Amino acid sequence: MACLDPGDEVIIPEPFYANYNGFAVAANVHVKPITSSIDTGFALPPIEQFEQLITPKTKAILICNPNNPTGYLYSREEMEVLKQLCLKYNLFLFSDEAYREFCYTGKHISAANLEGLENNVILMDTISKRYSACGGRIGALVTKNQQVLDAVMKFAQARLSPPSFAQIAGEAAVDLPDDYFNEIKAEYQSRRDLLVELLNKIPGVFCPNPGGAFYAMAKLPIDDADKFCQWILESFSYEQQTVMVSPATGFYATPGLGKNEIRLAYVLNREDISNAMICLEKALAVYPGRTNS
Amino acid sequence: MACLDPGDEVIIPEPFYANYNGFAVAANVHVKPITSSIDTGFALPPIEQFEQLITPKTKAILICNPNNPTGYLYSREEMEVLKQLCLKYNLFLFSDEAYREFCYTGKHISAANLEGLENNVILMDTISKRYSACGGRIGALVTKNQQVLDAVMKFAQARLSPPSFAQIAGEAAVDLPDDYFNEIKAEYQSRRDLLVELLNKIPGVFCPNPGGAFYAMAKLPIDDADKFCQWILESFSYEQQTVMVSPATGFYATPGLGKNEIRLAYVLNREDISNAMICLEKALAVYPGRTNS
Repeated sequence: MACLDPGDEVIIPEPFYANYNGFAVAANVHVKPITSSIDTGFALPPIEQFEQLITPKTKAILICNPNNPTGYLYSREEMEVLKQLCLKYNLFLFSDEAYREFCYTGKHISAANLEGLENNVILMDTISKRYSACGGRIGALVTKNQQVLDAVMKFAQARLSPPSFAQIAGEAAVDLPDDYFNEIKAEYQSRRDLLVELLNKIPGVFCPNPGGAFYAMAKLPIDDADKFCQWILESFSYEQQTVMVSPATGFYATPGLGKNEIRLAYVLNREDISNAMICLEKALAVYPGRTNS
Repeated sequence: MACLDPGDEVIIPEPFYANYNGFAVAANVHVKPITSSIDTGFALPPIEQFEQLITPKTKAILICNPNNPTGYLYSREEMEVLKQLCLKYNLFLFSDEAYREFCYTGKHISAANLEGLENNVILMDTISKRYSACGGRIGALVTKNQQVLDAVMKFAQARLSPPSFAQIAGEAAVDLPDDYFNEIKAEYQSRRDLLVELLNKIPGVFCPNPGGAFYAMAKLPIDDADKFCQWILESFSYEQQTVMVSPATGFYATPGLGKNEIRLAYVLNREDISNAMICLEKALAVYPGRTNS
């Protein structure tokens, strides 16, 4: 609302965090998805595809880095491509970096470090992911663009106060020692390694190795991810357990995409992940909508 | 956003809580003010004045009852007038009842109790005022309109979670004994009685007796409330103290109104209120922009 007018357009690589749709509706802004594919591990689509989507109404590109739902971590080269696009067409780069501390393969390149793009970058972060403080509802918007800051301050003043208890908790969290994330990152990385290994061992399943966050996308031999995710909860169990995963369809804006993909969140311990993958394999073996792919 | 489309209009008696402007901007909705006057104690303007403002774009009337900033408590007759208007023109009645427990003169008539208006009423409440939990950021939207509820649920789901700590505090607060408010109301009423009495004793000052909330509006013999409120903070002191009050101009949407009015919040104890009124009287005696009215 501080950067875009009603009717403006924002380009977002899909699959993307589904709530961006809700925020766009609230701001009367149109989301133009640009499709990334599981077959390339959800790499940034080529620059030409972005340029085909750009209209006079296009005011911003939004990325989530590392990504929810794909876990994809954008490379320096990809960030440079985004920078050139934003400079050429005078676009904002909204960079959701809520998972920036959770990178395992490759280095996190923050949009805030793209030289020459200072006036275009709006970075977002939150204590919810960074400090496992879901429900805290304390976030940060970081920009060097003074005009944007001035507009944002008006909204902040209308909001009066972020939640007070979580402000106190958030302030304390910021003072955690520098090595706070080391143990957490090591744990998540070992979970990721295990999850990706076990997924790719299941016949017909493909899971690219995500560089960060705590999500992985997997392609399954199924007819319809929504049906499968409902079926495994309602109609399947193995040793009195089942698995809850997200159908990928909700993360794609283009209708029909993601029908044989799911998102997994590796927020369980290693033993639970192992059991879950056994359960998933058993489920796929008997799922009525199994395909041969 | 759940009830109105961009470009729709909402009628609000002014002076009104200034943040309604911000919310309206965020929702792309236009506020049409209808002026109530300090000379009638901020009673509801006549029904004809409402009807003059109604256009095909008018979708709602918004009231705050008891009112911020005036403390005005709408009578049963006034609530019936609003009901007839909403039924005749098929309007929503947004009723901000954040101060509903703080009524001293007269009975609070909730919009939710207007028979036959069930489908039009959207009631709002919050723990911030009710339980003196400012910064909690836990509110409630209450309606019997199922379509509105369905739309609101979509926004609630996009929001994911209200602040978690304040949810816990709010749930505990709801379990307070029924007599919790008695002592608090008695204290506020004694502050109101004292404040209004002392204000009206100051030469040139007029303060109608507010029925509820913890605010009072006063007309002062001054040229410009914004200037006065800044001057008393920056350039005046009496016995090393001064008083902070709000210029009323920010509560009026019509330019030029409220220039000789201020809002006082009686959230101080009685002794501090007494000292503040001495200080205010001394200030008015020497304020360079004093008028003769």
